[in-house]
Amino acid sequence: MPTLENVLATIDANQSEAIDRLFALLAIPSVSAEPERFPDCARAADWLTRELGEIGFEAARRDTGGRPVVVGTAKAKTRDAPSLLFYGHYDVQPADPLALWTSPPFEPRLIKGPRGQQIVARGACDDKGQLMTFLEACRGFRANGGLPCNVTVLLEGEEETGSVSLPAFVVANAKALKADLALVCDTEMWDAQTPAITTMLRGLAFEEVTLKAANRDLHSGIYGGAAINPIRVLARILADLHDANGAVALPGFYDGVEELPAEVAEQWRALDFDDAKFLGEVGLQVPAGEKGRSTLEMLWSRPTCDVNGITGGYQGEGAKTVLPAQASAKVSFRLVGKQNPERVVQSFRAFVKARLPADVTAEFVSHSANPAIALSTRGEPVRRAARALEAEWGRPAALIGSGGSIPVVGLFKRELGMDSLMVGFGLADDAIHAPNEKYERSSFHRGARSWARILAALAG
Amino acid sequence: MPTLENVLATIDANQSEAIDRLFALLAIPSVSAEPERFPDCARAADWLTRELGEIGFEAARRDTGGRPVVVGTAKAKTRDAPSLLFYGHYDVQPADPLALWTSPPFEPRLIKGPRGQQIVARGACDDKGQLMTFLEACRGFRANGGLPCNVTVLLEGEEETGSVSLPAFVVANAKALKADLALVCDTEMWDAQTPAITTMLRGLAFEEVTLKAANRDLHSGIYGGAAINPIRVLARILADLHDANGAVALPGFYDGVEELPAEVAEQWRALDFDDAKFLGEVGLQVPAGEKGRSTLEMLWSRPTCDVNGITGGYQGEGAKTVLPAQASAKVSFRLVGKQNPERVVQSFRAFVKARLPADVTAEFVSHSANPAIALSTRGEPVRRAARALEAEWGRPAALIGSGGSIPVVGLFKRELGMDSLMVGFGLADDAIHAPNEKYERSSFHRGARSWARILAALAG
Repeated sequence: MPTLENVLATIDANQSEAIDRLFALLAIPSVSAEPERFPDCARAADWLTRELGEIGFEAARRDTGGRPVVVGTAKAKTRDAPSLLFYGHYDVQPADPLALWTSPPFEPRLIKGPRGQQIVARGACDDKGQLMTFLEACRGFRANGGLPCNVTVLLEGEEETGSVSLPAFVVANAKALKADLALVCDTEMWDAQTPAITTMLRGLAFEEVTLKAANRDLHSGIYGGAAINPIRVLARILADLHDANGAVALPGFYDGVEELPAEVAEQWRALDFDDAKFLGEVGLQVPAGEKGRSTLEMLWSRPTCDVNGITGGYQGEGAKTVLPAQASAKVSFRLVGKQNPERVVQSFRAFVKARLPADVTAEFVSHSANPAIALSTRGEPVRRAARALEAEWGRPAALIGSGGSIPVVGLFKRELGMDSLMVGFGLADDAIHAPNEKYERSSFHRGARSWARILAALAG
Repeated sequence: MPTLENVLATIDANQSEAIDRLFALLAIPSVSAEPERFPDCARAADWLTRELGEIGFEAARRDTGGRPVVVGTAKAKTRDAPSLLFYGHYDVQPADPLALWTSPPFEPRLIKGPRGQQIVARGACDDKGQLMTFLEACRGFRANGGLPCNVTVLLEGEEETGSVSLPAFVVANAKALKADLALVCDTEMWDAQTPAITTMLRGLAFEEVTLKAANRDLHSGIYGGAAINPIRVLARILADLHDANGAVALPGFYDGVEELPAEVAEQWRALDFDDAKFLGEVGLQVPAGEKGRSTLEMLWSRPTCDVNGITGGYQGEGAKTVLPAQASAKVSFRLVGKQNPERVVQSFRAFVKARLPADVTAEFVSHSANPAIALSTRGEPVRRAARALEAEWGRPAALIGSGGSIPVVGLFKRELGMDSLMVGFGLADDAIHAPNEKYERSSFHRGARSWARILAALAG
């Protein structure tokens, strides 16, 4: 396969320019959760549209009701080549709390890390670094005669806020987007040496609940003792969400949750997951989930409930003797197997309402409701991609689960009848969604090489 | 008493100028909880120093380790007059949430209210409006030959943040400040027609607790299920603070809490407190305190626990699937009788620590720890003040309790051996500590007249 060797050589020779391109994208603060950043989201979309044009794609920014989508298409150099839809997202998480960053989140830089150089910036891994590995692979083929597959690239700007506009866009453009296989890059390696293909994803139901009591904030001296405190009510409800064994207490929550098949359980045991290292890296020691479950089960095959945010009353410096009029929490559920997101949402809302004392009302906003998904490990795409990854990294690819949701995988399956091959080069310590997010420079470089190999392998 | 009649006439004739003076003070955003407002606190102190000088006081701004104190002294026109120490505070609560104000909090204005005109601004009642009633009374005497008592005015700028610097200042200036009686204006009327003298105050212990778990914020998909969530731990602890009957569950919390003497209970029943109206004004219906207690008991003679603020994780718009590294709450206890604030604080801290799971630590900051206080209703000062108030308002003054703390009253008793006469003209619906704080124009006008009468009465 002389073409592939040339493509890999091109990627190697152009690392410095590749870093420059990634830094240009990382410098755009495309935070989709912050309305004042919407113009930056549009700028990131425009930047990617130009980038795709430069490497031979017919590309356009496509406006939606929310942040724009970028779509680019490029034909294979040969007839009868398979068609692929590559998905990524250019939006990033909010950078707060800013005070915990050691350098400004939108001024990317290379620093020396324990494994070699790291790229530090918001989005360095999730998802700008990851998506650029694929574009760099395409650039390598462009310089060596063209792509081996028909490729459509779909880049959205609302992944971090629930991909609100994407379903309608995919439905409206189903014919243009439908391919033999989707490629999704928003996943991790097993460890820094071992590539992975993710075949199991948890779903996500994300609810926001606001409890309201008095019609205004009260003085806790004048009203305290007689007026109901919505923070206290909220605390009681949140405390009740788990039982003494760490299981989620919502009625019907475990409907559709199945035990792992014996062969999968065996494969996971063989991965020899290091609980102490996984937790130790973030300063923890004891797995905090359901009693009697392994940590990998807690992360990949068991559902969860977490409070992602809580707010109420005075939160500034010092003391304020306020008895607040309202309190709210963001509560999310990671879903597995056949759990029905809508039923989980309804059970949660009923659970809250059943615990409201007199004078307290609850309002709900739903931010996400996506089921879990699983892919066959025995199909041709997974087998070819696994061989390509092994050729690059010198180790067999691990076939793993992931605790995080990638709702687009469900969307592609549901609306386009299309499976997704999930390959990414993130690592557990990349601090995505947190301060000082990073991406290993080796992930960026060898990630691009890996995609080149996968494209060649999928072409046959 | 021709002098008093002249003083009252002067106050009546100068209402418009009095409003101008109050508005000038209200326009200074002297929020002691916000470091960026410290220069405004100093400006308010300077303004009051000039104001005192104008009405014949020898006044000076006195610097402390925190916000400055203003002290002014003026001699009585006669010998052998009693000496009084008037206390007020020029600092105000933070104005947030700003969005709920119908006009900017530091642009005072007069609006039409259900009982007549109202002064709307942060601090309109607490405590700028209240303290200016006293200065306007002094101004009236100044225009009519001088004060009937020796008066020292002490105005601090840290009342809303726990009066951190005041105790040392009072101790260091004990000789200058010691008087026959303190006058404290930070209290309420019984209702818009009925003046009141407050003889019972709850104390306050105010704690801030921060729970810390992982060494950084985590992605709830990647870590959710295995990593402990400090919001969940905090919710459980806060939920446990009350038992099913609404009583505070801290061990030893009720030590020193006594049942009301029968005569006081009878007097309170005779006040015919309207639960439905009190709660209805703020949109509530059901008293939420300890089962089996009257609302006035819940407010005046029973201790409480309230969560004044809670914060953790992502609180912006939309969804962020973060599993936060920490969560914190501001928790305060209103104290009565002989409850020991330090013991309550220690019991709270032990209660929290006993409920920490593996990997979670707690840090505490104490913002306040003051005992409850009670004054004799049978002494000469209360009797003379009660007659003066009845003369102004045409109704007997109610002798009441107050749910809020006025730590300075304890300080004066402890350090100067001095009782405090607590008279104020706030109303329950003044929205102090909340958006759209107001003060009735009649409170401001007749408050000044009331103080003129009280000064005359105390002079004999």
